Amino acid sequence: MTSRGEVLPVVSEKVIETPDASNPVLVCGLPGSGYVGKLAADHLVTHFKLRRVVVYTSPTFPPQVSVKEDGTAQPPRGELYYASAKRGRGLFVFTADAQPTTSEGEYELSDAVVKFVKKCGVKKVYTLAAYITGSFSKSPRVFGAATSKGMVATLTENGVTMMKDGGISGMNGLLIGLAALRGLEGACLLGETSGYVVDAAASKAVLELLAKVVDLPIDTSKLKEKAEETQKVISQLQAMADQASETTPQPGREQRPGYIG
Amino acid sequence: MTSRGEVLPVVSEKVIETPDASNPVLVCGLPGSGYVGKLAADHLVTHFKLRRVVVYTSPTFPPQVSVKEDGTAQPPRGELYYASAKRGRGLFVFTADAQPTTSEGEYELSDAVVKFVKKCGVKKVYTLAAYITGSFSKSPRVFGAATSKGMVATLTENGVTMMKDGGISGMNGLLIGLAALRGLEGACLLGETSGYVVDAAASKAVLELLAKVVDLPIDTSKLKEKAEETQKVISQLQAMADQASETTPQPGREQRPGYIG
Amino acid sequence: MTSRGEVLPVVSEKVIETPDASNPVLVCGLPGSGYVGKLAADHLVTHFKLRRVVVYTSPTFPPQVSVKEDGTAQPPRGELYYASAKRGRGLFVFTADAQPTTSEGEYELSDAVVKFVKKCGVKKVYTLAAYITGSFSKSPRVFGAATSKGMVATLTENGVTMMKDGGISGMNGLLIGLAALRGLEGACLLGETSGYVVDAAASKAVLELLAKVVDLPIDTSKLKEKAEETQKVISQLQAMADQASETTPQPGREQRPGYIG
Amino acid sequence: MTSRGEVLPVVSEKVIETPDASNPVLVCGLPGSGYVGKLAADHLVTHFKLRRVVVYTSPTFPPQVSVKEDGTAQPPRGELYYASAKRGRGLFVFTADAQPTTSEGEYELSDAVVKFVKKCGVKKVYTLAAYITGSFSKSPRVFGAATSKGMVATLTENGVTMMKDGGISGMNGLLIGLAALRGLEGACLLGETSGYVVDAAASKAVLELLAKVVDLPIDTSKLKEKAEETQKVISQLQAMADQASETTPQPGREQRPGYIG
Repeated sequence: MTSRGEVLPVVSEKVIETPDASNPVLVCGLPGSGYVGKLAADHLVTHFKLRRVVVYTSPTFPPQVSVKEDGTAQPPRGELYYASAKRGRGLFVFTADAQPTTSEGEYELSDAVVKFVKKCGVKKVYTLAAYITGSFSKSPRVFGAATSKGMVATLTENGVTMMKDGGISGMNGLLIGLAALRGLEGACLLGETSGYVVDAAASKAVLELLAKVVDLPIDTSKLKEKAEETQKVISQLQAMADQASETTPQPGREQRPGYIG
Repeated sequence: MTSRGEVLPVVSEKVIETPDASNPVLVCGLPGSGYVGKLAADHLVTHFKLRRVVVYTSPTFPPQVSVKEDGTAQPPRGELYYASAKRGRGLFVFTADAQPTTSEGEYELSDAVVKFVKKCGVKKVYTLAAYITGSFSKSPRVFGAATSKGMVATLTENGVTMMKDGGISGMNGLLIGLAALRGLEGACLLGETSGYVVDAAASKAVLELLAKVVDLPIDTSKLKEKAEETQKVISQLQAMADQASETTPQPGREQRPGYIG
Repeated sequence: MTSRGEVLPVVSEKVIETPDASNPVLVCGLPGSGYVGKLAADHLVTHFKLRRVVVYTSPTFPPQVSVKEDGTAQPPRGELYYASAKRGRGLFVFTADAQPTTSEGEYELSDAVVKFVKKCGVKKVYTLAAYITGSFSKSPRVFGAATSKGMVATLTENGVTMMKDGGISGMNGLLIGLAALRGLEGACLLGETSGYVVDAAASKAVLELLAKVVDLPIDTSKLKEKAEETQKVISQLQAMADQASETTPQPGREQRPGYIG
Repeated sequence: MTSRGEVLPVVSEKVIETPDASNPVLVCGLPGSGYVGKLAADHLVTHFKLRRVVVYTSPTFPPQVSVKEDGTAQPPRGELYYASAKRGRGLFVFTADAQPTTSEGEYELSDAVVKFVKKCGVKKVYTLAAYITGSFSKSPRVFGAATSKGMVATLTENGVTMMKDGGISGMNGLLIGLAALRGLEGACLLGETSGYVVDAAASKAVLELLAKVVDLPIDTSKLKEKAEETQKVISQLQAMADQASETTPQPGREQRPGYIG
């Protein structure tokens, strides 16, 4: 009969492969408003045929399994993918089924990912997120923030509208913040979204900007299809809102083409 | 005079015996809605005369002692039982007085149990839980989800209605999810229950299905007695509801025999 | 330039002295309803001229310092006292400025105390607590629960009203529960109190019962003085309530002498 | 393929330099009511041209990055500064972008700072904080509390109004409390402030008192400018309040010169 206590393994990291990467970058997209980042990350994984290299589990993920349509169940996990993308550039993509439920969990998972990719030679970390405006936009802008003045300049040159204050909360902020603390550079690209629908148009916008910033060709035609479906939903909502606005007119609404209430 | 700091032992595991098990399975039943899983687990422990092999304590259990009718008090704990059941099959049963109060606690306790039984040769983990419908059913269905397509097929063959989406929260989900992460297979059987009463009929239903799935004879006559008592309570509630429904008729109610509002 | 991470020292234990104790017991009294346990513990420390042997600090204590009347400030801490009391019996008393703010903190502190006194030969742990009734009683009863049938018998013989169900939450429950898990015996004595005032009469009642149970002479005259002051306050409240009850009579009240509503 | 668990590094301490300090003191100022402590700490860093010697990060800081006006983003961190100030006295200043979000985080960060400066020879720790009165004062008083009677005497001699009860919560309390537990002395100086505005006058008042207590010349003229700006805001608020009070006269107000509502 023995008695023992165990140290809490906050983040468990199962390494399948440590890629021998050439000039790699890390792009992160996580579940959040409009699924902007998650859609973009999933698109990169499929488009570049990335392979899973690390699986992260954490007791700070929501304590549950999700059941899929075929009856199979799986607990939330983080996944780091990798492949050598075109033009000899290595591409890491980090995504997850959920974000951790505590600050400590967010810090630990972010730091585990940053430490791993740093070891593989990553110098720059990008997070793809949503910039919620509450209005629908036909051509969503991309906002940004970065951990260094050099990256702020690069983003600005590529047409990103730099944030001037405020904060980026959760892992989208922490991943670049902890990257900076570990000597890397980080930038967050935030696609303008209403926050009301799964927004593939915003995902497409951030990916197109990312493509310019990291000099990688990214075919976003599949996202375009999804975005067009979203646009139909938005148009219907807009029509309904317009109809409502005819009955109850709201002054000044007409001056804002491309947006609805 | 000395000063020292201590690492938090999140789960403390007191091993009484490490069974030399033959082809064993793990069945878990925990306190929850309708006590479906807990009743079933307690029934297995009594029926197969299982012996306690591991006791788990955790600072994430509710911070209290429960006082029994004889005035004795005990803090919440988890218990793993074992015996070689009929047909040469080893049977582990895990149950607890309470579920941990934090996500981290649920993860750690689930993982400690999975790691121990894996060491003893367990390949399949079953959790018994409740599927709350809000209605009373005379012949409760059994719903299910599993971590592999093979187990989904096995459950389906045995008459389990597979879940098609949604999630299984708490340790019922985590135990099979973490089992899968550690290379085992897991399935959750959820007995249909109203959620309003301690439901031995639902426990009986999941145990009868479990008996088929793991090929173990389980005499559920004692649960049948409890279920009949429950049924009396339900009949009384039904009579009261019918009486109420005579005064305030609700259309369509008659078409749903076996259910009340 | 170096970087390092540190393990969280959940409970820090500063040992001033490890007493060479003879047949010792541990009595615990903590801040809580009516200060019943805390008053009792402080009385024991003063009465038996106990000396401080261990000081506990914990990051789960409320994050603050308390400022005393002379302007000095001190963070919350736990204190274990000891002396050889009369009749050759060693007496440990544990008290604290506050109870930890998390379950984990309560578990860890309780366990640290139990482990230390076990090392010093303690076999029995008593916690002194409040049994809240919402009514004032002139001769407060003492309720109890214990971790073994033997101690239940001893308490019953000494006039304790054993609890028949329910729970004892916080460190009063955990200290005896974890004592039992570590092979000691534990009992909780709960003095009947209204919960509305600092209740020295309840403290006196539990100490008088403790004196019988552990066979230690405890002079409670100082608590009697405090209790009489409390009684004056209660009498005034009672007078006010009686006056109110004359104007708004409540049937059945007269049948419960010794209590006010 | 490997699997590993990691211990949570609660506070990460990046040491840039371990100063060889002569007779040093530690002064701490953190974000809080009226920014009294933070303004004072920032003033000391600028005034004495202190250099950053340790950077602290913690998963208990708010999980976010803050974006500055130039688009750069940074996660919250704690910073310890040092320089040999005038009269051969070493001066450590600790400040942070935010206070940790949990009790445990506050304890750990406070303790990490105290341990580091103790190693460097610090014997006395001062925290600068706000004493909220809800009223505006033209000549803010400085309140105080200390961990030793000797420091209480020193503060009293220098004109500090000692607190007589109550508590000092958060790191302002813990830093001196944990300093005392580690054998140092600590005092908290609290500048009287309304709590409604960023209050440079209160910062100036605590710094002038600190200058006397630690015998360091501190030029507070820049804080005076800021305080005068604040005073203008207060005067406007006062004028508005006076105007309101003319319409709705409140008896007794005139007797309290120097305060408004």
